[in-house]
Amino acid sequence: MSEETYQEFINIAQAKMDQKTKPIGSLGVLEAIATRLAAIKGSLSPSVEKKRMLVYAGSHGIAKEGVSAYPAEVTGQMVLNFIRGGAAINVITQANNIELFVIDAGVEMSYPEGVIDHPTFFYLPVGQGTTSFLSQNAMSAEACEKAVQIGRNQANLAIEQGIDLIGIGEMGIGNTTSAAALYAALLSLEPAEVTGPGTGLDEKGIKHKTDVIQDALNYHHNIQKSPMDWLAAVGGYEIAAMVGTILEASAQNLPVVVDGFIATAAATVAFEHDPKSKEVCFFAHCSKETAHRKILETLEVQPILDLDMRLGEGTGAALCMPIIDSATQVLCRMATFDSAGVSESESDVHKRA
Amino acid sequence: MSEETYQEFINIAQAKMDQKTKPIGSLGVLEAIATRLAAIKGSLSPSVEKKRMLVYAGSHGIAKEGVSAYPAEVTGQMVLNFIRGGAAINVITQANNIELFVIDAGVEMSYPEGVIDHPTFFYLPVGQGTTSFLSQNAMSAEACEKAVQIGRNQANLAIEQGIDLIGIGEMGIGNTTSAAALYAALLSLEPAEVTGPGTGLDEKGIKHKTDVIQDALNYHHNIQKSPMDWLAAVGGYEIAAMVGTILEASAQNLPVVVDGFIATAAATVAFEHDPKSKEVCFFAHCSKETAHRKILETLEVQPILDLDMRLGEGTGAALCMPIIDSATQVLCRMATFDSAGVSESESDVHKRA
Repeated sequence: MSEETYQEFINIAQAKMDQKTKPIGSLGVLEAIATRLAAIKGSLSPSVEKKRMLVYAGSHGIAKEGVSAYPAEVTGQMVLNFIRGGAAINVITQANNIELFVIDAGVEMSYPEGVIDHPTFFYLPVGQGTTSFLSQNAMSAEACEKAVQIGRNQANLAIEQGIDLIGIGEMGIGNTTSAAALYAALLSLEPAEVTGPGTGLDEKGIKHKTDVIQDALNYHHNIQKSPMDWLAAVGGYEIAAMVGTILEASAQNLPVVVDGFIATAAATVAFEHDPKSKEVCFFAHCSKETAHRKILETLEVQPILDLDMRLGEGTGAALCMPIIDSATQVLCRMATFDSAGVSESESDVHKRA
Repeated sequence: MSEETYQEFINIAQAKMDQKTKPIGSLGVLEAIATRLAAIKGSLSPSVEKKRMLVYAGSHGIAKEGVSAYPAEVTGQMVLNFIRGGAAINVITQANNIELFVIDAGVEMSYPEGVIDHPTFFYLPVGQGTTSFLSQNAMSAEACEKAVQIGRNQANLAIEQGIDLIGIGEMGIGNTTSAAALYAALLSLEPAEVTGPGTGLDEKGIKHKTDVIQDALNYHHNIQKSPMDWLAAVGGYEIAAMVGTILEASAQNLPVVVDGFIATAAATVAFEHDPKSKEVCFFAHCSKETAHRKILETLEVQPILDLDMRLGEGTGAALCMPIIDSATQVLCRMATFDSAGVSESESDVHKRA
């Protein structure tokens, strides 16, 4: 859809919304969500009934530099926890009628027998974790492209299977360091501005993490890089897969709910690579991770929730989906002033005219 | 439950939460919701599976002073819209698996035949609207007490019918004026601080509404009044009913989701009357109505959502309920580090010890 058509569709959907039995604009953010959904799907009665969360996991070589409060093996342990149904994202997706797919895009892990045959688990490791990006690229360009393709494939699978709305989340000990490095590189921010506690670093730990990011950027800044070059240089397999999902979802007009700090880094790469991909993205929440609010402002996007969460896994995106669903149903199903025989406000009649 | 037991229970529930496979505190507001729910229900595995929204309607005599953008007859027309399923609250409760009860606590309306027999409509008008409170009481003390009792009865009915969580919302053209007068009187705020556009007044309309509230307060301030006296003086039938629901829910340990600007006025009366009633209340969202944020801060309560909404009807409360449900399920159903075999962060182990 061209930029013009997208904005035109939003206006037409807003005109439909303004006929509903409520003061104009009184549903606030819900109205903006519903009209954007209409524009993405090219329908004045968009549905997001069938929802799927895609949680990508990858291990990070940078974790060996002591940048996380948790040991690196937790990435694989948590993937097992996802498969067995014990994690926060399992509980929250089940509570909200959202399908959960877990994708190993490059976890350093030997799974117990039988696990990789689980029907909603996709065992597709590009490698056994990335390389520490302190003085090498995290991934080769080829490995990065493979990981991007894993994400593209999931977007296509979702469309083939009739999914109306996808969310993207992640697991990867060390990946706030990757995300911070991507923000610093792509948005021209200082490492100190984008570095936070992640899973729970103290002041000293944050200082060390900032130094690691600064050192890595000093090394990698020596040549001009494209967004995809930066993704390979300091990203991760799960981040690259999320980039692929956003780019393919954009190509296919599939709306995407972007989770928190890490998923937003994937969105940043996608937007720098293809600005049009921003149209299909909804930003679920403002994470408690220090820099997220500033980054969302820099991207000029509005998060829907603000609940002091900092877990990842897609938990914010999953919590957001029922709100997006409610918003679309308001557009599809509410009565109009005419159909319900409700008197109007003179000023609202004037606004519509 | 005594204050001490309530706080003790929150601490015990937090200890259970801290065993779950996630960094301590990383689910932010969800954790606070879940532990409060546990304390209210006196259970470490609280459920809010069965949810009901109570929407109270009342007509306001003050509407004849030109304080609303909408004509007064819209109150009754919207009640009909609720009964017929066409309003925003119908759509949003259905989308989120929430039962909807509509209660006429005092609407000026002649309903079409058959309507008052609708199974989820309660036709219990205390009067055909309140009196304009510019220079009289809106209700007699007896009428106010009757309306409060309607709300208490609904809390009891919910408990009898096995409801785990209720929400309160309202419909009443003119009721932001009532709510603003209650805030000014009970929280010692200036009329100009608490008066906003409601359903859509312009600057001039807001100025007039502020003057009406100031004139009314000048009249009513002549004698010392209790919170319940103020409720009768400047409140409304639907506001009084919400006060009753909160007070009875508090007595019965039933959690209540308070909707927006008007429902918060009912909560303010309830808290001033019985401070303990604050324990059972969750504040759904920060309304776009001008003064709501300041009032929530004054009450020292945190709204869960902030979506620029200003519709009422319980729409914010309904949107909030799936989040509350998810929060409780996290506490009930997530795996622990032990059960899932996930390694812990040393600093988090230290925090728990």
